[in-house]
Amino acid sequence: MKAEIISIGDEILIGQVMNTNAGWLAEQVNLIGISVVRITTIGDNKEEIIGSLDDAGKRADLILITGGLGPTRDDITKQTLCEYFDSELKFNKQAFRDIEKLFEGRGWQMNEKNKKQAELPANAVPLTNKNGTAPGMWFDQDGKIIVSMPGVPFEMKPMITNQVIPKLSEKLQTDTLYHKTVLTQGMGESWISDKIEDWEDKLPQNIKLAYLPQPGMVRLRLSATGQNKKELEKQVNEEIEKLKNIIPDLIFGYNNDSLEEVVGKHLRNNQATVATAESCTGGYIAHLITSISGSSDYYPGSVVSYSNEIKIKELGVSEDDLEKHGAVSEAVVRQMAEGVMKKFGTDYAISTSGIAGPTGGTDEKPVGTTWIAVCSKEKTIAKKFSFGNNRGRNIRVTALQAMNMLRKMIIKN
Amino acid sequence: MKAEIISIGDEILIGQVMNTNAGWLAEQVNLIGISVVRITTIGDNKEEIIGSLDDAGKRADLILITGGLGPTRDDITKQTLCEYFDSELKFNKQAFRDIEKLFEGRGWQMNEKNKKQAELPANAVPLTNKNGTAPGMWFDQDGKIIVSMPGVPFEMKPMITNQVIPKLSEKLQTDTLYHKTVLTQGMGESWISDKIEDWEDKLPQNIKLAYLPQPGMVRLRLSATGQNKKELEKQVNEEIEKLKNIIPDLIFGYNNDSLEEVVGKHLRNNQATVATAESCTGGYIAHLITSISGSSDYYPGSVVSYSNEIKIKELGVSEDDLEKHGAVSEAVVRQMAEGVMKKFGTDYAISTSGIAGPTGGTDEKPVGTTWIAVCSKEKTIAKKFSFGNNRGRNIRVTALQAMNMLRKMIIKN
Repeated sequence: MKAEIISIGDEILIGQVMNTNAGWLAEQVNLIGISVVRITTIGDNKEEIIGSLDDAGKRADLILITGGLGPTRDDITKQTLCEYFDSELKFNKQAFRDIEKLFEGRGWQMNEKNKKQAELPANAVPLTNKNGTAPGMWFDQDGKIIVSMPGVPFEMKPMITNQVIPKLSEKLQTDTLYHKTVLTQGMGESWISDKIEDWEDKLPQNIKLAYLPQPGMVRLRLSATGQNKKELEKQVNEEIEKLKNIIPDLIFGYNNDSLEEVVGKHLRNNQATVATAESCTGGYIAHLITSISGSSDYYPGSVVSYSNEIKIKELGVSEDDLEKHGAVSEAVVRQMAEGVMKKFGTDYAISTSGIAGPTGGTDEKPVGTTWIAVCSKEKTIAKKFSFGNNRGRNIRVTALQAMNMLRKMIIKN
Repeated sequence: MKAEIISIGDEILIGQVMNTNAGWLAEQVNLIGISVVRITTIGDNKEEIIGSLDDAGKRADLILITGGLGPTRDDITKQTLCEYFDSELKFNKQAFRDIEKLFEGRGWQMNEKNKKQAELPANAVPLTNKNGTAPGMWFDQDGKIIVSMPGVPFEMKPMITNQVIPKLSEKLQTDTLYHKTVLTQGMGESWISDKIEDWEDKLPQNIKLAYLPQPGMVRLRLSATGQNKKELEKQVNEEIEKLKNIIPDLIFGYNNDSLEEVVGKHLRNNQATVATAESCTGGYIAHLITSISGSSDYYPGSVVSYSNEIKIKELGVSEDDLEKHGAVSEAVVRQMAEGVMKKFGTDYAISTSGIAGPTGGTDEKPVGTTWIAVCSKEKTIAKKFSFGNNRGRNIRVTALQAMNMLRKMIIKN
């Protein structure tokens, strides 16, 4: 089955709004085995809409449309579709009830414009919009499926996930699809692919693996197709259990987990606390930890010790060691971590010291050289890394490494 | 003049790579008065490329193509264009010299594949690629202009800015365009538009104003058209001088400046230093400041005082005041700022304390309630803000407000 995506909106054509919908949509339908052959962006213009629909219909069996469903006059997608199908607008009870429910939930009053939004082309099946007033529309006409959805990502995405994808799977009588993404931190894509090669080769035919690398992180997506969702879930989880035995330290979570969230949960479950002493990451680890609501329960704070003076005075780093080994050294990160743990009376601590770049490197310690330490009351682990030349990336990658080192220490404790 | 954009790349159609090129390109040509009527994304497929070119040619005078110019076999744009124009590949001296230069600059050896990249359709005018080996191509055929560029943004963007836009302006004999963006922080879009209404109404006919809001920031873009670039620059700067008199405190920079960069420059120029004491921003201000290379010259560090205990012990905040007024109060942020300035011996300090949300609000202090203080040796200024419910946004907006308060204090000192 082939699909085309049509994004409607003047704001995209003047470059004011980035079209993030199309790529996301493409990914979603690809995951159920439908390939996207073309993405077209046009303005809120009747001729353009009809022309694109005609063209797309020649190439594709499924047309996904976003945008132009708002209640204002510049939004003309619904009227144009009505005309395209030679249909007429009719009051749709289900759509009306959906809008009514939305307004009740928010304690708002419905106006005439909102009521009008429940008028849909007679041949449309309404799709519930949980986050807005414009219903989506599903058309099944002459062997083609045409789906029209709002352009607001927040409204469109749940409509796709909860209604369109299940309807498509059913319609196509395609196999059920189950996917789960394994999140890893600590090693690069090629290291992982070497390490898990045997496991990958032995994966059942119905499970596909995709590598999705990001700075400081590699995501492994397993997509399984079959008849029974429960069965697939079980099958995928069994494979993940095997994977966990091969790269136990790298896996920190699944799907939409973040490392800061996972570490926060481990700390909370253990009623433990952590403090941070940051040099090269300059507060970024503190920012990650505190981006989680409720983090004050396990995070009293941080000393961002950019200067050596603060390392000495606030964290108790030895002046001799600073002179002898430099700020980017094992001795210094160990003392930073232990110093902040003692100072703030926490159970764990993280410290970082490195040359984030792009300047400041030497022959002995080139840009990217970074020491990270994590400690508990029982022990301190320090590690040296050689990252790249990009300052922003080095800060991010260092922070993720440090958080994962802490995660490993907590679960082993 | 009407334009269409064709983005070529299988990776976009499977949702693996976000098509950020098309929106950026649309914005750039819009700025010289060319409107984009359609954006089409297709795969690396000969029939699709030729079909899209045919269709686009019926609607537009200018076709901008990105992607498919790499040296590997899956990239077929150059061969397809050659076929489309019924032309033949010829060794192009200028393109070869450009590639040679690139390799010399990087100390690399050219291989056969690289040399082949200097072969272009005979009717193409090469466009220099300063950041890669694939030359761009400019075709002027049957009254249509077709431009083919690499898909890598880092290679494509300078090609557009430095070569395509000037050539288009010349070809179209359009007016020269000059634009400058004024960066403001402190008030929202509607407050600003009320305040500068008179100035906006009196802007010369050839200068257009666009409001570009972002969380915690409003950018004002002035676009002037005319004959002489120098004249336009002078004219725009005169208008900006008038604007500065109306909203002097809000303007912190121009074009691609960032607040952390601007504040860093002010500190450096004044040989001054700053420290931070962060509660609700949780290290994000420290992260912004240290994202600038060389910030260690003016930034010794920060105390992220998430807990009250650290506020008391490390920053000398009065326990009584914490109890009487709460952590989110004027008394506390004042003492935090003054405390960290004294502790780290800096010339300035910033402090923040607020309810970032989404939980933790009370009737008296709802989510978003935030106190910010900045201080110098002479004085401390504290301000209360009421931001929204979004944690990430509150952190960002608080940090920008705080940085701008510091900026104002430095320049008034």
